[in-house]
Amino acid sequence: MSGERKVFRELQSLESAALTFWQAYTAPEPSAERLSINETLGRVLAADVFSEIDVPGFDRAAMDGFAVVAESTFGSDDRIPVKLKILGEVEAGNTNAHSISRGEAFEIATGAPIPKGSDAVVMVEYTKRHADSVEIYRPVTPGENVTGAGSDIMTGELILRKYQVITPREIGLLAAIGIGKVDVCRKPRVAIFSSGDELVEPGGPFSFARIFDTNGPAVAASVAECGGDPNFLGILPDDYNAVKNAVDTALNDADIVISSGSTSSGPGDLFYRVVDDLGEPGVLVHGLTLKPGKPALIGIARGKPIFGLPGYPTSALMIFHVLVAPIIRRLSNMLESSPDKIHATSPMKFFKARGRRELLPVELITNPKGEFIAYPMQSGSGAISSFSLADGFVDLPEGQEYVDEGEGVEVQLFGRGLLPPSLVAIGSHCVGIDIAFTLLRAGDPSFLGRTINVGSVGGFRAVKRGEPDLAGVHLQDEETGQYNIPFITRYGLERSAFLIRGYDREQGLIVKRGNPKKIQKVADLLRVDVSFINRNKGSGTRLLIDRHLTQLAAAQGTDLENLTMKIQGYGYESKTHSAVATAVKNDRADVGFGIRTVAETPGLEFVKLDDEKYDFLIPKDRIEKKSVSVFLELLRSQEFSRTLKQRAPGLTADRLSGTVLFRPA
Amino acid sequence: MSGERKVFRELQSLESAALTFWQAYTAPEPSAERLSINETLGRVLAADVFSEIDVPGFDRAAMDGFAVVAESTFGSDDRIPVKLKILGEVEAGNTNAHSISRGEAFEIATGAPIPKGSDAVVMVEYTKRHADSVEIYRPVTPGENVTGAGSDIMTGELILRKYQVITPREIGLLAAIGIGKVDVCRKPRVAIFSSGDELVEPGGPFSFARIFDTNGPAVAASVAECGGDPNFLGILPDDYNAVKNAVDTALNDADIVISSGSTSSGPGDLFYRVVDDLGEPGVLVHGLTLKPGKPALIGIARGKPIFGLPGYPTSALMIFHVLVAPIIRRLSNMLESSPDKIHATSPMKFFKARGRRELLPVELITNPKGEFIAYPMQSGSGAISSFSLADGFVDLPEGQEYVDEGEGVEVQLFGRGLLPPSLVAIGSHCVGIDIAFTLLRAGDPSFLGRTINVGSVGGFRAVKRGEPDLAGVHLQDEETGQYNIPFITRYGLERSAFLIRGYDREQGLIVKRGNPKKIQKVADLLRVDVSFINRNKGSGTRLLIDRHLTQLAAAQGTDLENLTMKIQGYGYESKTHSAVATAVKNDRADVGFGIRTVAETPGLEFVKLDDEKYDFLIPKDRIEKKSVSVFLELLRSQEFSRTLKQRAPGLTADRLSGTVLFRPA
Repeated sequence: MSGERKVFRELQSLESAALTFWQAYTAPEPSAERLSINETLGRVLAADVFSEIDVPGFDRAAMDGFAVVAESTFGSDDRIPVKLKILGEVEAGNTNAHSISRGEAFEIATGAPIPKGSDAVVMVEYTKRHADSVEIYRPVTPGENVTGAGSDIMTGELILRKYQVITPREIGLLAAIGIGKVDVCRKPRVAIFSSGDELVEPGGPFSFARIFDTNGPAVAASVAECGGDPNFLGILPDDYNAVKNAVDTALNDADIVISSGSTSSGPGDLFYRVVDDLGEPGVLVHGLTLKPGKPALIGIARGKPIFGLPGYPTSALMIFHVLVAPIIRRLSNMLESSPDKIHATSPMKFFKARGRRELLPVELITNPKGEFIAYPMQSGSGAISSFSLADGFVDLPEGQEYVDEGEGVEVQLFGRGLLPPSLVAIGSHCVGIDIAFTLLRAGDPSFLGRTINVGSVGGFRAVKRGEPDLAGVHLQDEETGQYNIPFITRYGLERSAFLIRGYDREQGLIVKRGNPKKIQKVADLLRVDVSFINRNKGSGTRLLIDRHLTQLAAAQGTDLENLTMKIQGYGYESKTHSAVATAVKNDRADVGFGIRTVAETPGLEFVKLDDEKYDFLIPKDRIEKKSVSVFLELLRSQEFSRTLKQRAPGLTADRLSGTVLFRPA
Repeated sequence: MSGERKVFRELQSLESAALTFWQAYTAPEPSAERLSINETLGRVLAADVFSEIDVPGFDRAAMDGFAVVAESTFGSDDRIPVKLKILGEVEAGNTNAHSISRGEAFEIATGAPIPKGSDAVVMVEYTKRHADSVEIYRPVTPGENVTGAGSDIMTGELILRKYQVITPREIGLLAAIGIGKVDVCRKPRVAIFSSGDELVEPGGPFSFARIFDTNGPAVAASVAECGGDPNFLGILPDDYNAVKNAVDTALNDADIVISSGSTSSGPGDLFYRVVDDLGEPGVLVHGLTLKPGKPALIGIARGKPIFGLPGYPTSALMIFHVLVAPIIRRLSNMLESSPDKIHATSPMKFFKARGRRELLPVELITNPKGEFIAYPMQSGSGAISSFSLADGFVDLPEGQEYVDEGEGVEVQLFGRGLLPPSLVAIGSHCVGIDIAFTLLRAGDPSFLGRTINVGSVGGFRAVKRGEPDLAGVHLQDEETGQYNIPFITRYGLERSAFLIRGYDREQGLIVKRGNPKKIQKVADLLRVDVSFINRNKGSGTRLLIDRHLTQLAAAQGTDLENLTMKIQGYGYESKTHSAVATAVKNDRADVGFGIRTVAETPGLEFVKLDDEKYDFLIPKDRIEKKSVSVFLELLRSQEFSRTLKQRAPGLTADRLSGTVLFRPA
């Protein structure tokens, strides 16, 4: 026994100890390791993941039935079926390129690519097959029962964000876009010692007055639970040189060192001296104003954290939980994880499948009070995007007809590790938002943004319900030509929402590289040698297309309906800008309408027609939210406008970006 | 495309499908694998674990200070300190056998074995050390600041039960009793296929009209999350023979087979035929009355479950969660796991450390409403038993003086995987309860019993608060000699608790093998050549000892206090039967008092003095609880009395065991 007795320095509160630590410690950038997606459950993404493919990659049948040219079926009914010639059959996974004309059909399976020339699928229920022909009992419209290429996920779309915890859902999503290996954050390596001459390793030889080491294995398991990679290095004797050498060696490989025992002021206290002698700054905190935290120690040597825990197992585990676990969790980018089920409320009235129990996929957001809102997925169950957004599902019993607005629901989560996002955007989707979120996260690694794409009209409605932090909108008033502001009154938001200036978007015609058919203006869509691909009704871009066509119709002395009958493909709707671009690139159409950003890929060209205003609607009760302020500050920054210019041609911020266009009463 | 179309059989509800499955399926006994405890986080114990050692294994110092013969310090105070000669120093882990007499002392560290002859430790704060001597400023009583051998965990005590999910706490506990490797249930092996000609493995070559397989990786990760061992075996083509061969081969190694896709009635449906052709009973369920469960399939072939999931990823994952996950969880003996923190209420007023923030270890039980009750640990933070029982801790701020009865608290859990026990016993501990719980679990693998040992008086109090399902009690009324019943009125339980007949316990003198000192009766304790080891005040056994001594005193015309002054070691208290036995075995005393069960080990002998009644107090509102009924039924069974006879000599059930001795008004 040395004559020395270590006198405890001033005890600190837990908060003050953590502050002292973070002031002295600079965490290194987490290094990444590339793993097969099958090994990533519970790990943390090291980088944003963008899709390099469209999903689906082709127009496909959404039902079993017969692929047809929709016009062939017009006028058919139960009494007077239309008879079509069967050219063959197409299974899902069929990679042959088929094509058909009017009066012909291919039998087709759900998920199979529709033959070139076809634009709709008649469900098998409304057909009767003969050897070489099929009778059609109901007409279909162009696009009916067809899932358009890229309608689910667009090429270049941000799919998962850095620091996302990986659950089965994320693994499935990575698989869906063809990613077999992915970069995840390496776990912090944590070296663990127990110290005390009296300790024996469990299973080791035992003799009088010895006790088995409890802390080593228990701390190692706790480190694993909070996302660290534990490495138990054994029991240290109560010997200064032995402890010093062991800790010094451990610091070569480990990111963190934890020892338990031998930190009290009794005989055998030497860990304090060791940590102080290993280098600057040495011991930062010795003793907490907390029962049982008196022997706790925090130090830093060679730039790495060193923790001393009490010797008693219960004390050691408690001090680990309150002092060390938050630090390991932060270094491993693991935030709080979630239970299997959570309670949420429905933001809207939602009708379920009649007379059948239904599992309804939902996405979770939080309202200003921090309560969960379960947002039903809008897209069909076949969509990868509903998979990628769904946090879980609600189990609705057979007898129930609908879920009412504000009704409570239990959500079964798809995986653990649910993180409440910092900022939720619900409305029209734009790559500009993705870019903003990426920049925000570069400034704050804990930032997690979420986008739910429901179009501009959906965005106004969501803000009315008070759900998102912001909504991207681009609606133009037909009469005044003014963007977005007139709709604030129309949706009754004049007392409850701000409108913030976003940026301009160039909209126009998307054509093949070199513009072989010389398509320059809207009137060219009427040409007999030109085929068009349209956008879905209700989207802001479709409203824009129809405004152009209405003007053209007026100029020609006709109306929209009559005019569009002359446009080949007008009835064929794609759901995203990207799907339009893909259709043109793949020769399914000569021209489409969309933002310049998606036309800036090999094989395509852009003919600009409009500058539209893409702004942000923000509920009044979110305007003071920290993440919203930071978002607005970013919109006003040079960094944002510069990054838009580099990464999103066709999107242009200006000096008004981020300023208030409308302030609620 | 084959001309065949599989017509769906009658759709079933999820409940009916599960019932159909469990009626047709017999789960095999889970096989065990032996792992290092460091590899067992999140696994499930395959067998009960009993301690083969006492913890602590020796009498040890509970404080830093000086080991002394307590009598040496009598009469000392600040003005007139007693001066003792220092013989040396004892560190924790010192394995030398020291001994001292009156007037001597050893400097001693917390956790170090006290020298033979010493019976107390004077805290360092009340001493002043000189070179060869120490001044003592306060007297100590025998046993003061000494933790008795086995006072924490007894040899033979049931430590962990089969099917316990292993968290860091269980790993620490196994370590504490020296267990380095332990048997855990092998995870069910789950073979996973995706099927469909159109599917490509993520990262694999991609071409027109193909899609990446989402379900294989997502289902594999979900299997891992619910305790299975997933093995993804690849993508199967839409070919009957290929699918049949693959599933057939998979059934050789796997416990369960899951396939997704190719189960609908469209082209490519063949999984139904494959499962039906692989052997009896084949397909059990095809289609659920559940959106989106129409394509779901359950079958059994070669005694193993086979599941078919829908092809759409969201649908596949939802059907997995509601249909397959509960089955895998049951086969892996994983029950619902828990979040990090839960809300509970305090069952009692509890005073915390004054002026200091405190982390208070608590044990969780549920009340009849299923709400959590957080029971503060009674033993000190050094005890392994407080570690083994504590589910987590409550963080009490500095300003708070106490936790009130019924006050809500947040409990930070020590690990995930918390299981609410089926049956909670709070009161006097007895190996008879452990035996009963073991038998109950043999009949129902999901049974999990929990015992909290607070003595008979603590048991009565806990029942008064309505906490346990049952309390083992053995209190004898001094006047009438009647056991337990008189105390029902004394604790005000005549309207709220049943008393159920348990069994007889033989109590008596525990002496060394061969009884070298010929100790036959209580009067022998007075002999000058005999040293005694006592039990702690408040324990039922201490009450019994003092009853014997009071009678002896009366017979000798003196009182208890005067009589016990003549008994060497009367002031030295051990807390358990086992610690008494260990003290006798290790020559620290010649005789102790306890139940025969602990004396039935090599090196000891038993001299019977009493038959006492060990009964069970059961709160009125628990008497109808399923697990309580089953417990009472067991007490009445032949199996129980036979097993007691074999495994617990000294415990004897009779024909009244399990019957009502007292019924509340």
